[in-house]
Amino acid sequence: MINLTRGVPPVEVFPIEDLISASERSLRKDGKYTLQYVHSPGYLPLRDWLAQENDVQPDQVFMGNSSLELLQFLSMTLLKPGERAFVESPSYDRANTLLKRCGADVVTIPLETDGIDLNIFEKELKKGVPGLVYIIADFQNPMGTTTSLVKRQQIAAWARQYGFIILEDSPYRQLRYRGEPVPTMRSIAPECVVQMSSFSKILAPGLRMGYLIANADIVHKLHEYAVDTYIGPVTPTQGMVYEYLKAGLLDANLIKLCNLYRPRLDALLTMLDRTFPGSTYPRPEGGFFVGVTLPDGNKMDVLIPAALEAGLNLTDGRGFFLNPADGDRFLRLPFCSLTPEEIETAIRKLEPLIVK
Amino acid sequence: MINLTRGVPPVEVFPIEDLISASERSLRKDGKYTLQYVHSPGYLPLRDWLAQENDVQPDQVFMGNSSLELLQFLSMTLLKPGERAFVESPSYDRANTLLKRCGADVVTIPLETDGIDLNIFEKELKKGVPGLVYIIADFQNPMGTTTSLVKRQQIAAWARQYGFIILEDSPYRQLRYRGEPVPTMRSIAPECVVQMSSFSKILAPGLRMGYLIANADIVHKLHEYAVDTYIGPVTPTQGMVYEYLKAGLLDANLIKLCNLYRPRLDALLTMLDRTFPGSTYPRPEGGFFVGVTLPDGNKMDVLIPAALEAGLNLTDGRGFFLNPADGDRFLRLPFCSLTPEEIETAIRKLEPLIVK
Repeated sequence: MINLTRGVPPVEVFPIEDLISASERSLRKDGKYTLQYVHSPGYLPLRDWLAQENDVQPDQVFMGNSSLELLQFLSMTLLKPGERAFVESPSYDRANTLLKRCGADVVTIPLETDGIDLNIFEKELKKGVPGLVYIIADFQNPMGTTTSLVKRQQIAAWARQYGFIILEDSPYRQLRYRGEPVPTMRSIAPECVVQMSSFSKILAPGLRMGYLIANADIVHKLHEYAVDTYIGPVTPTQGMVYEYLKAGLLDANLIKLCNLYRPRLDALLTMLDRTFPGSTYPRPEGGFFVGVTLPDGNKMDVLIPAALEAGLNLTDGRGFFLNPADGDRFLRLPFCSLTPEEIETAIRKLEPLIVK
Repeated sequence: MINLTRGVPPVEVFPIEDLISASERSLRKDGKYTLQYVHSPGYLPLRDWLAQENDVQPDQVFMGNSSLELLQFLSMTLLKPGERAFVESPSYDRANTLLKRCGADVVTIPLETDGIDLNIFEKELKKGVPGLVYIIADFQNPMGTTTSLVKRQQIAAWARQYGFIILEDSPYRQLRYRGEPVPTMRSIAPECVVQMSSFSKILAPGLRMGYLIANADIVHKLHEYAVDTYIGPVTPTQGMVYEYLKAGLLDANLIKLCNLYRPRLDALLTMLDRTFPGSTYPRPEGGFFVGVTLPDGNKMDVLIPAALEAGLNLTDGRGFFLNPADGDRFLRLPFCSLTPEEIETAIRKLEPLIVK
């Protein structure tokens, strides 16, 4: 069985020995602090490190037990009940679920190869200004697209004009396999953007270590909400990650990951070009996924069981759309956990099951 | 300045070297699992260990990033909006805040030396059956009282008869300095009780590692809610704690903690007996706190600044009561982080500030 389901890193990339020594250094030097009740914004040395890395003040950095939960904190503190939240369509299924659970009126805006559709965005803006706009600008989940600079600038200009907050979720940004980085939305409009990220994709997901960068007022509100939720986040792991970062190990890890994932992405795109002529898909330059829109006539209810029989585990594409029918021809193909050979095998097995 | 505020363990009790080696063993043996996305109920070996320790099945154990957040998950999944939740009065301030935030109609029942007032409990039951009853049966926070067996049995009988869930929060239960343990409410009525606990008081609070024991149906509901909140809890710390437990180190740590805290409790009770004749307070046999009700005429707004001037940091007793005025003469005195000498000094400084 080949898994084409969740976007998880392959276990062999976890730098276990480096984390063992980082954990030891942190506990020995600072265990009296990381094992005690801690201030909710997170472990200060790590916040300082992230602040410096992102050219902001430490009081603009807020740590949590996963960026998904930070999205909940943001929704609960920034959105009024029933207020509109714009999301890309398709988008990260768990973000959609969470926004709905928090009582948001979730409005979907179609995603194009260079980012969200600005015409529809503007129409929706005029129908009602959202409290939040949730955008995965780099190597989008599930599509793999990157929002162009022009679109980032236009959305930022609207954020200023209409007074909404952009949540820029960027867990894949540091996994760029080719091409030049586009400036973050935060760098374009720091006063309107909360940038979220995490160590899940660049270090290890089991850490559940998310963080965000925002203005100090938003951090203050989040702080109160987080204290009332769990007092503070898990701290010994924050100490461990801080020591790992301080030792300068992240850059080499990112290079290792990019070198491992690049040929996997290439293998997937090559196979798609060769065998999926009637489908459309972007050409991601990084991240974990390629989102494939199959030709008319394909249906999840037929494809998923047929794939299972052929030894392929697929994710139901309908999960990424708020209107599930919109995803009936959509496949999210994660490539990081599969070798180029496995990817080739997977696409060969998938090909005869697709209606062309 | 002597701190008589939060109930935190003294930092010197954290078994740092033992945790360093437990972390190393766990990461090396099982890092590929604990660093990966994990199943939301928590790290299975640890759930197995807790199941065995508590004589339940592993699918009855659910781990979270603090027992406080587990209380939120329980409230959000078990309580209908506006449904009643009974709490002891006084009670853990953060639990009260969280229940209110989750939309519960929080009903306070006075706490007596041997547990909640059953007459008022019964009257409130007849006014409206609660969805949840939140009880800290052992060494209550903030009072220090332990609920008697007779009262546990009566509340359990009502839970069966009226069909409500008891949340038995027991983070202090293993810190008994004298006397015999009273059976848990869960052991009396396992079908009606969710028992919550954590490693904060017996190992280290920075771990933010809470857990609960419930029937498998409740665990299943929590699982779904937790996945939608943060996918899964932080896992490398769960691996570390599992290795610590497996090495058999917890029992010795509990003995060490009890031997350290017992004389501190004794010093506090001795000083109170000697200097606080007009006050009432229970005689706790364990835990972190002694709750003192001062004579009429004392007021927080006078006492707290006067104490500060004398070098004492007090917690505002009104925070533990849903009706703050009820706590205007209430002091929660935590004793674990202070030496007997510091406790003696603190009470000597406090004594002249009290209206007798």
